[in-house]
Amino acid sequence: MPSRRWFLTSVGAATAALAQWRSAAMAQVRSLGAPVSGYGNRAGFERALRLFPNTRTPEATASLTPLRDSYGIITPSSLHFERHHGGVPEIDPAAHNLMVHGLVDRPLVFTMDELKRMPAASRVLFIECSGNSSSEWLGAGAPSVQRTHGLTSCSEWTGVWLSTLLRECGVRASASWVLAEGADAVRMARSLPMAKAMDDVLIAYAQNGEALRPEQGYPLRLVAAGWEGNVNVKWLRRVEALDGPAMTRWETARYTDLMPDGKARQFTFVMDAKSVITAPSGGDTLRGPGVYEISGLAWSGRGAIRRVDLTIDGGVTWLPAELQAPVLPRAHTRFRWSWRWDGREALIASRCEDESGYVQPRRQDLVRERGANSGYHQNGIQAWKVAATGAVTNGNA
Amino acid sequence: MPSRRWFLTSVGAATAALAQWRSAAMAQVRSLGAPVSGYGNRAGFERALRLFPNTRTPEATASLTPLRDSYGIITPSSLHFERHHGGVPEIDPAAHNLMVHGLVDRPLVFTMDELKRMPAASRVLFIECSGNSSSEWLGAGAPSVQRTHGLTSCSEWTGVWLSTLLRECGVRASASWVLAEGADAVRMARSLPMAKAMDDVLIAYAQNGEALRPEQGYPLRLVAAGWEGNVNVKWLRRVEALDGPAMTRWETARYTDLMPDGKARQFTFVMDAKSVITAPSGGDTLRGPGVYEISGLAWSGRGAIRRVDLTIDGGVTWLPAELQAPVLPRAHTRFRWSWRWDGREALIASRCEDESGYVQPRRQDLVRERGANSGYHQNGIQAWKVAATGAVTNGNA
Repeated sequence: MPSRRWFLTSVGAATAALAQWRSAAMAQVRSLGAPVSGYGNRAGFERALRLFPNTRTPEATASLTPLRDSYGIITPSSLHFERHHGGVPEIDPAAHNLMVHGLVDRPLVFTMDELKRMPAASRVLFIECSGNSSSEWLGAGAPSVQRTHGLTSCSEWTGVWLSTLLRECGVRASASWVLAEGADAVRMARSLPMAKAMDDVLIAYAQNGEALRPEQGYPLRLVAAGWEGNVNVKWLRRVEALDGPAMTRWETARYTDLMPDGKARQFTFVMDAKSVITAPSGGDTLRGPGVYEISGLAWSGRGAIRRVDLTIDGGVTWLPAELQAPVLPRAHTRFRWSWRWDGREALIASRCEDESGYVQPRRQDLVRERGANSGYHQNGIQAWKVAATGAVTNGNA
Repeated sequence: MPSRRWFLTSVGAATAALAQWRSAAMAQVRSLGAPVSGYGNRAGFERALRLFPNTRTPEATASLTPLRDSYGIITPSSLHFERHHGGVPEIDPAAHNLMVHGLVDRPLVFTMDELKRMPAASRVLFIECSGNSSSEWLGAGAPSVQRTHGLTSCSEWTGVWLSTLLRECGVRASASWVLAEGADAVRMARSLPMAKAMDDVLIAYAQNGEALRPEQGYPLRLVAAGWEGNVNVKWLRRVEALDGPAMTRWETARYTDLMPDGKARQFTFVMDAKSVITAPSGGDTLRGPGVYEISGLAWSGRGAIRRVDLTIDGGVTWLPAELQAPVLPRAHTRFRWSWRWDGREALIASRCEDESGYVQPRRQDLVRERGANSGYHQNGIQAWKVAATGAVTNGNA
C-alpha cells in the first residue's frame, strides 16, 4: 500500500504522542523479567476463550472457537472447538491400541509406538461441525462470529494414512465401508465409504506439532479431510471393514438433515464451501470513519478456495478479496481487504468459490431448497451490519 | 506403500493381540469424561519440555525445542525455543506502543489497536538462533537432537509489514538502516539494512493463531524472515530509521563470527540452508530390525528447500527423501523416508539444497573455511550412529 495513508495524525498530535512515549519509556522499570521455562503459557492479559453454554451436562455439549480473536489460518489447539457426547476420556497412550478388523485377511492391533514408526504425513485441515451456523438457518440468530461460526477450526494434523493400515491388514475387495469407533463413554461411531478410507483419511496422533489435545481425541483421532466434524472420530480405538454402513445412532437418529417432504438426507459428509468475515464482526465497534482491514476465513471440503468476493452494500456490488498464501485444500484460507469506511451504515459480507466451481449460496436459497428444519450444513452467506455509530451486529435478514 | 508389509506379525501373535484387545476393551470404564473448557491444556501423560541449563541466571539463557517429539512443521508456541538476555518482561498491551522515528517525515507512535486495524499478513517462518548447533562445531558435542538443533522453531506469524509503517511515516531516501529496540530490561537492539526492512519484515502481534506468547515478544515482535534469531527483536517498542548501522553491543561484542585471521564476520544475517534427522536421533533405541520412518526438518533463510538427500552409510551413497507439502520459503520443511533397518551398524544423515542452489556443507568444510572459533552459523551435516543394538548416538566425527 505505498501511496495510502492509514492514520491522518496531525503534526501536533504526533508530537504529543512522541513526548508521551518518551516519558513513559523513561519511567519503565528495567528489572530482570521471567526466566526460561519448560512449557509456556499465554500472557495473562489475553482473554480469548472457547464459549460454551451453561448446561447441566457440560460433558455432552460444544464449545466454540473465538474466531474474532484468531489470526492466520492455524487455530491454537487450546482454542480448537469441541463437541463431545460423553465427555473427554483420560487415556494412557501406553495402554491404548487401535484394532483394525472385519473384512480383512489379517486383523491387527496397533500400539501407539508401532503407529509412530510407520510412514506418516502431516496436513493442514479444517474440521467443522455440521451444526456450525445452524443458528442462522432462518435469519439473524447470534450476535458474534464466535457464536455463528465458532464450530470450525484448523490444525496441522500428523499421523498414518488409514489406507496404509487397511492395506497392512489385507482389506478384502468385499469391504465397501469402514466403521470407526471411539473409546469415549458413548462409543461414538461413524461409517465411512471405503473410497474415502483409502483416499485421504489420517489416523492422527499429533496436532500443531505436539500430541493431540485430550479434547481432540488424545491419543488417536480419525481425520477425514473436508468431511463433517462428527465423522472425525476421536479417541479412536477400532476400525472395522464392512460390506455396508453400520447405521449407528450417529448416522440415523443424529446427523441427518430433515427435508420438507419428511425424508432425511443421510451421509451428508462433505462440508460445502463457506466463508465468513471475522473482523469486523458482530460485537465490534469501529472508532469512527477511516481505514479498517476486513479479514476472514474461507474453506471447502471439496478442495482449495479459488476466490472470495466481498460486498459492503449488502450484495449489490462485489469485489475480490486478497487470498493469503498458502491456499491449501480443505484448510482455512485467510482473506483480506482494506476498507475505507465512510462512516455510513454498511452491510458487509463475503462469498467464496472453491476449485470445483461451487459458489457459497445465500441462506435464503438453502432454506428454499431444504426447508425450515434442516439445521445441518448451513453454509450460507453471513452478513454483518455496520451502523453509523460504528456498532457491528448480525446483518442476516 | 501398497505392496510393503510393515509388521510381520504372525497369525498366532495377532490372534493373541486381538483377544487381549477385546478383553481390555470390555474392562474399560464407561463413565462420563471431562467437560468442555475455555482454554485447553495438553494431556498429563505428555512429557516433552523445552530443555535449559541449570544456571544462576535463568533470565539470560536459552531453552531448546524438543525436536524429537515434534511433528509436522508447526512448533507449538508452548515449546518454541527461547533466548533471553534480560528475562521475559510482563507488558500490558493496552499500555504498549511502537514508536517509528529517525529519518522519517512524520514520526509516529502506534498503539496495538491501531496496528491491528492495518493491513496484515501471516507467514509460516522458522526462527533459528545463530548459535544453534554450535556444540557440533568441532565434532560430536551433544547427545540428542534437542541439544544439537533445538534452537530452531517454526510458527505462523501474523502482523503488519514494517514497510507499511515506514511508508506511513514517510521514510526518507537518506535512511539506509533501521534500528529495532526491545522493551526488555537490557533494551536488546539490532540494526537491519533498509532493503530488508522494506522487503519481508513483519511486525508480528500473533503466533500460531493467537497473541504472541510472552517469551516470544508479547505483545509485539519483529520477524525478519530467514534471518538469525537475535535480529527478530522481541517486545519491540522502537524502530529508528538511520543512515548506518547503530553498532549496538549485540552486533559488535556479540553475534559476530571470529575468523582464523583474528577478524570477525559481522552482520551475518542470513541463516544458511540446514537440515537434520529428528527421528531416529540421539537417545532413541530401535527395537530390532524392521521398517522405521526416517523423518526430519530442513530450512533455509534464502527461500524454499528444493531437495533433501539421505544417507545410511555415512555419506557413501545418498538417496532423495520425500518433501512434505506445503514446502514454504523460509519455513521448516518436513522430509520423510521409509527405511528398512537390517540390524547392522549404520551412519545416517541428511543433506539439503535450497532454491538458490546452496547445498548444506559438511561440518569439516565449515571449520576449514572459518576456523575453530567461529561458533555461530554452524549449518553442517549432522550424523547419527545406529549401533547393532539399536542405540542411536551422535555420529559426528
